[in-house]
Amino acid sequence: MTVDFRTEPAKYKHWKVSFDGPVATLAMDVREDGGLRPGYELKLNSYDLGVDIELYDAIQRLRFEHPEVGAVVLTSGKERIFCAGANIRMLNQSSHGWKVNFCKFTNETRNAIEEATAESRQSYLCAVNGPSAGGGYEMALATDWIILADDGSTTVALPEVPLPAVLPGTGGLTRLVDKRKVRRDRADFFSTLEEGIKGQRAVEWRLVDEVVPRSKLEETVKRRAAEHAARSDRPTGARGIALTPLARAIEGDRITYGTITCAVDRGRAVAEITVKGPGAPPPATLEATHAAGADFWPLALARELDDLILHLRANEEEIGIWVFRTEGSADLVEAHDRALQEHAADWLVREIRLYLKRTFKRLDVSSRSIFTLVEPGSCFAGTLLELALAADRSYMLDGALEGDTRKPAAVRLTGMNFGPYPMVNGLTRLASRSLDEPARADDLKRRIGVDLDAPAAAAAGLVTFTPDDIDWEDEVRVGIEARAAFSPDALTGMEASLRFGGPETLESKIFSRLSAWQNWIFQRPNAVGDKGALRVYGTGRRSEFDRRRV
Amino acid sequence: MTVDFRTEPAKYKHWKVSFDGPVATLAMDVREDGGLRPGYELKLNSYDLGVDIELYDAIQRLRFEHPEVGAVVLTSGKERIFCAGANIRMLNQSSHGWKVNFCKFTNETRNAIEEATAESRQSYLCAVNGPSAGGGYEMALATDWIILADDGSTTVALPEVPLPAVLPGTGGLTRLVDKRKVRRDRADFFSTLEEGIKGQRAVEWRLVDEVVPRSKLEETVKRRAAEHAARSDRPTGARGIALTPLARAIEGDRITYGTITCAVDRGRAVAEITVKGPGAPPPATLEATHAAGADFWPLALARELDDLILHLRANEEEIGIWVFRTEGSADLVEAHDRALQEHAADWLVREIRLYLKRTFKRLDVSSRSIFTLVEPGSCFAGTLLELALAADRSYMLDGALEGDTRKPAAVRLTGMNFGPYPMVNGLTRLASRSLDEPARADDLKRRIGVDLDAPAAAAAGLVTFTPDDIDWEDEVRVGIEARAAFSPDALTGMEASLRFGGPETLESKIFSRLSAWQNWIFQRPNAVGDKGALRVYGTGRRSEFDRRRV
Repeated sequence: MTVDFRTEPAKYKHWKVSFDGPVATLAMDVREDGGLRPGYELKLNSYDLGVDIELYDAIQRLRFEHPEVGAVVLTSGKERIFCAGANIRMLNQSSHGWKVNFCKFTNETRNAIEEATAESRQSYLCAVNGPSAGGGYEMALATDWIILADDGSTTVALPEVPLPAVLPGTGGLTRLVDKRKVRRDRADFFSTLEEGIKGQRAVEWRLVDEVVPRSKLEETVKRRAAEHAARSDRPTGARGIALTPLARAIEGDRITYGTITCAVDRGRAVAEITVKGPGAPPPATLEATHAAGADFWPLALARELDDLILHLRANEEEIGIWVFRTEGSADLVEAHDRALQEHAADWLVREIRLYLKRTFKRLDVSSRSIFTLVEPGSCFAGTLLELALAADRSYMLDGALEGDTRKPAAVRLTGMNFGPYPMVNGLTRLASRSLDEPARADDLKRRIGVDLDAPAAAAAGLVTFTPDDIDWEDEVRVGIEARAAFSPDALTGMEASLRFGGPETLESKIFSRLSAWQNWIFQRPNAVGDKGALRVYGTGRRSEFDRRRV
Repeated sequence: MTVDFRTEPAKYKHWKVSFDGPVATLAMDVREDGGLRPGYELKLNSYDLGVDIELYDAIQRLRFEHPEVGAVVLTSGKERIFCAGANIRMLNQSSHGWKVNFCKFTNETRNAIEEATAESRQSYLCAVNGPSAGGGYEMALATDWIILADDGSTTVALPEVPLPAVLPGTGGLTRLVDKRKVRRDRADFFSTLEEGIKGQRAVEWRLVDEVVPRSKLEETVKRRAAEHAARSDRPTGARGIALTPLARAIEGDRITYGTITCAVDRGRAVAEITVKGPGAPPPATLEATHAAGADFWPLALARELDDLILHLRANEEEIGIWVFRTEGSADLVEAHDRALQEHAADWLVREIRLYLKRTFKRLDVSSRSIFTLVEPGSCFAGTLLELALAADRSYMLDGALEGDTRKPAAVRLTGMNFGPYPMVNGLTRLASRSLDEPARADDLKRRIGVDLDAPAAAAAGLVTFTPDDIDWEDEVRVGIEARAAFSPDALTGMEASLRFGGPETLESKIFSRLSAWQNWIFQRPNAVGDKGALRVYGTGRRSEFDRRRV
């Protein structure tokens, strides 16, 4: 089956979105028989990838289609349960790769909740109105304010270690100690407690922000949401723009969007991705930009690149190398970048910049080798230059191939390379390449708008190799062939270790450290072997562990 | 077989130590037939745990026995090879646990090289006088100055990804981008290059610090070492103290040292560890402290605790819980802590403080659950209080058990809790417990020297639980039994995620992130399956990979 990440509210099975002025409510009401794949029932508001795809879509639409919304309440639409977390039976029947990819996407969605709160000023609150376990509590942890109903049954819990013998897979452990700053020994105790913690102790231990009698829950949530919304800088009178259905055609091994084409070469295990620069200058005014909406080139690019990355990650596991090219006019890319900078204060432009940021981050954390080829006719300027800066390796042709009369390739910096698109480590991609000499990234500001040919780009540290026409074809071919021959796992570990030098953040800790431990555990017989805890969970059989500590 | 970490220069098989005034040389000259276990030959200066145990011992002795040494040259004693890294055949025949534990110890030893350079002012330089691959280059990376011979064959390389399809296991990837700040795309290329890089390009890419003609190597190394030694603050006229043979008795399941006893309870999977406080006040003068040498209680404690941790990690894999107790006089512990503070500027006292720091760090990164029990008669003061602060969970008896007429338990802070013993995250254990309110750790300075009973210790955030006499026995028993029943792997991942909140350092990145990825790869069929690259390495057979990217 092919996983499709495109959806829209009319198609939601599991979420109900409602609005009350500046406050939106996202109510989780999972359809038991609505699993993405056969073989499991989504009981107790447990979720699978399909549930999370809807959540992801809802979060995006709230940002773009609802400028008036300043606060979002995440809650359960069911009476007796908040959320039981990721569906264990689904996990159990999934391949290793599916589990890991599922966790990565759900993590990205939790991060998007935090980013919406911090950067889009659409604050997420959580009304925990029933037991919340594992991924259920982790969803709450991604919000800015957790309100817990004080009754006999409503708890927060991370029972992954004591029950299925895995880790909370969506950042729970990291958020406990690094975001909520729960004392490490309390976090330890809590994370081994099947039944979780409720009431006042949950507040004392910093697990939630407030606890209120069940009878007061609705009223309290309403008040807190109004307070959060009142602190937002989002416009009250603006009109949202519609995220119109994404036009994508898949014909054989060719995937086509408006701004991107992707040719999947199965023999070489390569996805050849070409991003087309804008075909025309940006709209002349901010009003015209709003009117263009989803057709505005930077937004179309963000949406299409986002979808392509998700598609390839979920559906093309054996395609280990993504090769990026661009084609078009650097001047037009730069003109669009200028528009993104001039109108940075506008709510919609802010959203578009943030969406591009998230999409490039998604690229960085993808377990695929990323190569970029800079050739004549390309437009690696500003926003599109990020594709070269994100690459594990980039090749730039010095000069032109025989018979090609086009101008030699150039790359061009714009203001968008100097701040708006930080990686998960909090640094720009330029700064991440200049750890040895942090001033160099700033020095490069003087080169904004200048066409840098291959020697200049190499001297500026923007590209890896600059073969001339004699070496180009062989060097690129050999580089890709060699990459394709390496162990996919060794590459994943290597890339995760080399891409994010420098500082660490909550996000980088989740992706590079917590995820690595989880992946290890997902591979261990104590979890996934015949008698592993994840395997026997729910069968009535007991797990048996190899007791050796590693 | 039992691995013994105790050794001494007279017993070395693989290393030659020589001295030339303030410069020592550690020459690696591995005996092919000197493997720690049967089944492999240590060709090409490749190493196993036994080789590294000697290196570890040599580093320790240089610090304590040679105050006059300000610079140490690490080099090869063989003609045509520097070091080929960890022995692949050894890795291949080792269990998963052995591999992981081996990497942990070798990482700690590399970190000790960096710490000796930075804190003991015994600077390590590396003279790469032949091909240096994998762990061989990683050893060089741990030094402060890498000098490469410029000839046809001397290279640096990290061929783990292209050849055995694992990661460089001793911090190589992290040190490339985070210590040497090699640009990430160059690090990527270099780490996929079987043959490595030599000559001037190695300098340009920041892989080494200088390259010199083979004929000038000796002279250059000598000059650089003298320069480094000249910058040291170590005393020239002082006498070292002998690290006398460590007295350890293992009788059945009981391990006894001078300051520590350990009872291994196999049924419960628990090591009951009791640390005895000093039996007498510290020597009255610094001279007397030097005269006491290895018998000075803090140094004896560091050496014995270090050995016990290493012993349990390597030889008692199924003992998943380490329960720490202390017994003795808090006054005497505090008196020793005062001595460590008063004489902090003395080279020997500095070494002792650093050794304790490293030992507590070793405890933190051990994949064992750490519980601490604070009972009447204990002496959790200052240095020994670190054992409680390091614990995943601590229990402190509030009051006394029936019939026990001793004073209720107290804990006591000393100045040693406020700086000298940072964790791998760079924070003290107190600060790591106060991420929510960083000022609290400093506020606690006002309580230095005060006996804190259970309610006071709990209020100060120093202990987890404080059951009274009615609950004590059951609560402790149930806590330990529950822990013993969990999946060892899930606990390892959980503990690694919760222990190190807050900032990250080179060390924390290596232990918590690089190691996690390596462990995952060490578990993957692409490395260790029948056709995995590590498995077939050197057999002439070709590896076959599952090409799905995870």
